[in-house]
Amino acid sequence: MNRICELFGIKYPIIMGGMSWAGTPKLAAAVSEAGGLGIIGAGPMRKNDLQKAIDEIRNLTDKPFGVNIILVSPYADELVETVLENNVPIVTFGAGNPTKYIKSLKNNGIKVVPVVASDSLARMVERSGADAIVAEGMESGGHIGEVTTFVLVNAVSRKVKIPVIAAGGIVDGRGMAAAFALGAEGVQMGTRFIASKEADIHENFKQLIIKSGIRDTVVTGASLGHSARVIKTKFAKKVKNLEVSSPEEAENILVGSLRKAVLDGNLDEGSFMAGQTTGLINEIKSVKEIIKDILNEFNDVIKNLRERHL
Amino acid sequence: MNRICELFGIKYPIIMGGMSWAGTPKLAAAVSEAGGLGIIGAGPMRKNDLQKAIDEIRNLTDKPFGVNIILVSPYADELVETVLENNVPIVTFGAGNPTKYIKSLKNNGIKVVPVVASDSLARMVERSGADAIVAEGMESGGHIGEVTTFVLVNAVSRKVKIPVIAAGGIVDGRGMAAAFALGAEGVQMGTRFIASKEADIHENFKQLIIKSGIRDTVVTGASLGHSARVIKTKFAKKVKNLEVSSPEEAENILVGSLRKAVLDGNLDEGSFMAGQTTGLINEIKSVKEIIKDILNEFNDVIKNLRERHL
Repeated sequence: MNRICELFGIKYPIIMGGMSWAGTPKLAAAVSEAGGLGIIGAGPMRKNDLQKAIDEIRNLTDKPFGVNIILVSPYADELVETVLENNVPIVTFGAGNPTKYIKSLKNNGIKVVPVVASDSLARMVERSGADAIVAEGMESGGHIGEVTTFVLVNAVSRKVKIPVIAAGGIVDGRGMAAAFALGAEGVQMGTRFIASKEADIHENFKQLIIKSGIRDTVVTGASLGHSARVIKTKFAKKVKNLEVSSPEEAENILVGSLRKAVLDGNLDEGSFMAGQTTGLINEIKSVKEIIKDILNEFNDVIKNLRERHL
Repeated sequence: MNRICELFGIKYPIIMGGMSWAGTPKLAAAVSEAGGLGIIGAGPMRKNDLQKAIDEIRNLTDKPFGVNIILVSPYADELVETVLENNVPIVTFGAGNPTKYIKSLKNNGIKVVPVVASDSLARMVERSGADAIVAEGMESGGHIGEVTTFVLVNAVSRKVKIPVIAAGGIVDGRGMAAAFALGAEGVQMGTRFIASKEADIHENFKQLIIKSGIRDTVVTGASLGHSARVIKTKFAKKVKNLEVSSPEEAENILVGSLRKAVLDGNLDEGSFMAGQTTGLINEIKSVKEIIKDILNEFNDVIKNLRERHL
């Protein structure tokens, strides 16, 4: 029915974003159990952490799941090794070009899904053998590029033949229908899934997402070469200012700041990475409800569009 | 069939963006003649210029058209007066809150359509009596806000009852269908319409649009308080650098730079305002072809979506 569902062996083409600290086996298992694809965020992990996380998710679900590896991690090699050893069904790759890992993963039957922020990288990873692509717009939370979902998904899905998963700005059935209209065959959501009952992020983080409007995020780190969208807290504004006046100090206070947000809810020293979608999220729901509501609205939107046919 | 078509008395809910220098009576008439809504860009005009432009478009078409007024113009009052005197059917307002003009325009049967970049301003202008709203994402060309089309259109159309027109990132039927999925009932396009045979922008500008990819625009003026998306030329990069080192000099070289781009094709001193959609535009077409192609693709996309119904 849908190439993404077929490729991953899942019921609904709804993928969890790769999220450091927040992408726990528990949350990923909940997404997979609800019919989507849960993703363990291996961003800050080393081999042993990932091994534990894989063991944990396999205790929680027998459905397909994935692991997200960030290519800027100094431990990317050992994380890919762990994925291979454990025969994880799917790997998504963020922050770089994963070409060098694709062959060995594919030879072992592991599906490779790079996250891209440009149409040129999309074409490159397709040529290298990627099975699908996440096209992630700059409205996303965390590390981002410059092109918006609206433009990127349209451009990427016109330029590659493999299926495209849209990310950035999506929380509901409207977003999913729009992504499909632009050429995507799946959607990836991060912020929506951490605003869930099953997410183990600190309560302060969940409350910030609920309270924030669509204009309450800001991009930090742009001038440092690693743009990340975060909720506009005092800390975020401080980082923005320091980027100009004292880039080194900005780098210093950013170290460990995501962990402080996710685990400690530390409003003074934490980077609360989240997308512009914070302004579209008003409620903490269970993962099951999130997915059910999206699918219901998606079907309604498509029905209504039919009636607006010109 | 569609509230936007009804409101404006047009055949297709496709609106031309308000564009200084590029929004000529000739181009606006072509859009109106093709069944959309052409818009005269009164941005840099004074009373007499606008009077001439209105006379000109009325010689070219008897279809409805609109005038775009920028609220930061020191001549906004006299331009509104001219609109009233000439009983122009529709006014769109950019760069500010047009509340003070709404009552007199509406009393004279003129439709008022503010362009907004936030959900809060959308609600405010609805309360003030606006007839419709253009929700313009930050992927748009020219003066922009911070929120992307994907998030903004969804948020705004959930928060107001008047019809919403989506702007930013739209050039084709995919974009139109996605905008409708997000809750819009019309689309506004700027960059797509200036890449047309009828546009009188300099040939250099048209060629830049054709050649540029989705990552070939940049936002200048952000630190000066007037963010504008332009094609990433050497001049644009120079402005970006000067904004940090010498904001006054940046302001100085920006004066008149849009005119130099549009009329003179001046690559060294011109601000070629355009959206990220430059990367989706590969051909100069007639306005009629642009609109025909969008409608055909829109209908195809909706048909395909129906089949992807889950």
